Amino acid sequence: MAEPARKRTRGGGGAARRAERTAVSIETAKYIERNIPNYEVLTEDALDIIEQNAETVLEEIGVNFVDNPAALQRWRDAGADVQGERVRIPRGLARKLCETAPSQYTQHARDPNKSVVVGGKNLVLAPVYGPPFVRDAEGGRRYATMDDFQKFVKLGYMSKWLHHSGGTVCEPTDVAVNKRHLDMLLAHMTLSDKPFMGSVTAPERAQDCVEMCEILFGKEFVQENTVMTSLININSPMQFDDVMMGALEVYAKNNQACIISPFIVGGAMAPVSVAGTLTQVLAEVLAGIAYSQLVRPGAPVIFGAFVSSIDMGSGAPTFGTPEAALITYGAGQLARRMGLPYRSAGSFCGSKLPDAQAAYETANSLNMGLLSGVNFMLHSCGWLEGGLVSSFEKFVMDADQLGALHGLAKGVSVDENAQAMDAIREVGPGGHYLGCAHTQANFKEAFWKTELLDYKPFETWSEEGGRDTVALATARVQKLLDNYKQPQLDPEIAEALTQYVADKKASMPDSFT
Amino acid sequence: MAEPARKRTRGGGGAARRAERTAVSIETAKYIERNIPNYEVLTEDALDIIEQNAETVLEEIGVNFVDNPAALQRWRDAGADVQGERVRIPRGLARKLCETAPSQYTQHARDPNKSVVVGGKNLVLAPVYGPPFVRDAEGGRRYATMDDFQKFVKLGYMSKWLHHSGGTVCEPTDVAVNKRHLDMLLAHMTLSDKPFMGSVTAPERAQDCVEMCEILFGKEFVQENTVMTSLININSPMQFDDVMMGALEVYAKNNQACIISPFIVGGAMAPVSVAGTLTQVLAEVLAGIAYSQLVRPGAPVIFGAFVSSIDMGSGAPTFGTPEAALITYGAGQLARRMGLPYRSAGSFCGSKLPDAQAAYETANSLNMGLLSGVNFMLHSCGWLEGGLVSSFEKFVMDADQLGALHGLAKGVSVDENAQAMDAIREVGPGGHYLGCAHTQANFKEAFWKTELLDYKPFETWSEEGGRDTVALATARVQKLLDNYKQPQLDPEIAEALTQYVADKKASMPDSFT
Repeated sequence: MAEPARKRTRGGGGAARRAERTAVSIETAKYIERNIPNYEVLTEDALDIIEQNAETVLEEIGVNFVDNPAALQRWRDAGADVQGERVRIPRGLARKLCETAPSQYTQHARDPNKSVVVGGKNLVLAPVYGPPFVRDAEGGRRYATMDDFQKFVKLGYMSKWLHHSGGTVCEPTDVAVNKRHLDMLLAHMTLSDKPFMGSVTAPERAQDCVEMCEILFGKEFVQENTVMTSLININSPMQFDDVMMGALEVYAKNNQACIISPFIVGGAMAPVSVAGTLTQVLAEVLAGIAYSQLVRPGAPVIFGAFVSSIDMGSGAPTFGTPEAALITYGAGQLARRMGLPYRSAGSFCGSKLPDAQAAYETANSLNMGLLSGVNFMLHSCGWLEGGLVSSFEKFVMDADQLGALHGLAKGVSVDENAQAMDAIREVGPGGHYLGCAHTQANFKEAFWKTELLDYKPFETWSEEGGRDTVALATARVQKLLDNYKQPQLDPEIAEALTQYVADKKASMPDSFT
Repeated sequence: MAEPARKRTRGGGGAARRAERTAVSIETAKYIERNIPNYEVLTEDALDIIEQNAETVLEEIGVNFVDNPAALQRWRDAGADVQGERVRIPRGLARKLCETAPSQYTQHARDPNKSVVVGGKNLVLAPVYGPPFVRDAEGGRRYATMDDFQKFVKLGYMSKWLHHSGGTVCEPTDVAVNKRHLDMLLAHMTLSDKPFMGSVTAPERAQDCVEMCEILFGKEFVQENTVMTSLININSPMQFDDVMMGALEVYAKNNQACIISPFIVGGAMAPVSVAGTLTQVLAEVLAGIAYSQLVRPGAPVIFGAFVSSIDMGSGAPTFGTPEAALITYGAGQLARRMGLPYRSAGSFCGSKLPDAQAAYETANSLNMGLLSGVNFMLHSCGWLEGGLVSSFEKFVMDADQLGALHGLAKGVSVDENAQAMDAIREVGPGGHYLGCAHTQANFKEAFWKTELLDYKPFETWSEEGGRDTVALATARVQKLLDNYKQPQLDPEIAEALTQYVADKKASMPDSFT
């Protein structure tokens, strides 16, 4: 297509077109609406066995709700057998309680065009969550700061294929633990207009997030709508701690969404077998989501499954492995049988660098995420070193690959234009398609286009310095940050948010625990 | 698992176990027998439309058989409409002719344990094919030589997850074009005992390959059994040249297998749309396989589809893209509806280096290859720079990932051991699984284990030099070559093969065209 494109520039306006090619357009794709089937790895019989076993686990073994008398009372009232902190749930009760959870929900963004519908055939992509370290090619690996955090929020805002601003894109370790949620939420609210996540490190911090949302969206709107999706991890195996449950209770009461997610390193926090892990995952999610519905029937929730396997030599968690893929596919089937939105997969890797290992592992995980029917993919870009590091380069590398997921999800059209019989007739044996009418009419939309990877001939690539993917990514990070423009926000709201954060911070001493 | 393993070593024999850990075992996995479903992206209706359109292409437009009067006569005799070199095939005729092609076949290796069954639910993995250049970390990019070729054959022999020795693992450019097939085949026959491919660059060279196989396997055995699978490319769109068809004719007459494969860069050699490309691919394969059955009914063949897309900016082929994945999934469905073995996918990438780009693109392609039901995957490791380069490092990097495909293909067992209910009972809420009886009994087989990637803690990895994947791969290449041991071969056969090659080479002057 180079030739016709060059020809057109001769008519004038070349400079404008060059500007068009080099400028960074700030654009956000709509969340993925899959036009492809899910991949179903388990038979119905296998799913039945796992479901029956999960009920046995809940009934015979039960789960612990730790340091949470109110939760134990809720379970007693619901008909569970509570002994100490152990909650044994009669067969079928948890599944019954889960029925009030919605099959999908809308999470509103302050830009209504960026609101997302979580569930059904949709896939919403959110960035990496949680790492205490950051890495970039220049500065290497170091503790993350609030400055890093703001940069990641900006990169997320500038990334077309990212639908969601996420939550703790890195841990801003230079801000007190009891105050950093305020700065983090303020950054998401003011530096981006995409939907975001709330804090889960303490119930009172979750409450702060609700109050900041009330400033941003209006009090009434928040009570009637979901404006946050937050991550509630289960302490696998089968423990629900008071901190996470405390945050869940705040969010559920306020009709805000939570991912209820076992945190599994297979072989350590779950059995070494795929079917055994799926059984435990299902039991844990059933108990967790049932509990959310005891707090508030109808509260929006997501069936979560964070899955890695373990290197039996070193004990290290491993990512992008076939066993994790099988569990992810299977958990998707279990989630669909419950009629619940599903969260799993991500840009997972164990590598210390954004190198080939990182990319193999990540691509394995992103592909299985798309095909397993994931509805909300946390960590979809930027994850490095088993989740210890948020990588600037890998953020833009993965975010580029997310575009490929959009392309794959489009599926195959067989309308008359797509059948292309006229093109085949026009070109004929031995011809070529570059110049034919059908190609001219369709080439702009036909193929996914990378914003990062290199397709140049060897000679050109060499002359330009023979850059590897990391070098290309370093340049793209800088380009995106240079071109960042803050989305507009009502100055009164911005001022009120800043004041809220300042008041809250002033109201308590710093704590770093 | 580190703890119990260390304890056991105290009983003595630590040196033996260390040796076991560091030695390279020469082992070849059985070809993959999938215990997972195929991914079906197209509906039955869509497949019907594409099949009808392919028949229309064959009937109305037809295909060219170039410089091949004998082929034109065969088509005339079969009832086709032949005008000049254009062959128009009445609706249904090609599909009818394809019915004599077997749904699967065994390709015998000289080590019978390494014979492969191509078709059904199986997946046979073969290395990169065709690049004129090689690259390694030390020497960079350079023209390939016979020495490089032999090293790749040795690496293939040493690679557990590679079932097949392949063919032109790189082009030995230091040997005359009209003689290099002899050296290449001799290397496959003597340096490895895995199955291999024959030459397709001229009918007489294909004949040489058959004769060398008669020396290796015995004349009668070759006439009764398939001992080569060779790659016949179609000049898409819809041209069958005399060189490739000449080789096909030799192989088919000798009951040797051929991959009949359109060579598609979407947008250049086929329409820019997925459905249009699938239509052309099917028409081309129908014509090619029908032709093989006209030469010898029952000759073993594979439905091939080599698919890349095009970067509309530069005209460069692109790999690991979503459009190529959709075509690969769809072509698999079309092949299964014909009841034929299917070849597609590979370690495809456009990157100049074995970096993150290469790994993303490759992982995308390998995953789609497994799930699309591919039976024979050429290029499954070592491909770089759009097929211009065979990379030593990428060969072992990709070959390691092929192990992950084996793991995924195992699917999910739900037998009593896999259900792991005893483990879940033993561990209970808040416990951990590392030391439990079920983990102890199963951990060795539970997870796919890399022989290359790094899972060490950051500190250990840093102390060891902070190596990236390429550096790890360089070391592994050297380790495999250092540990290479030539498989035994009857000295009389080895001598006869060497003599055959020497005589053939002496019988003609060098030609570099």
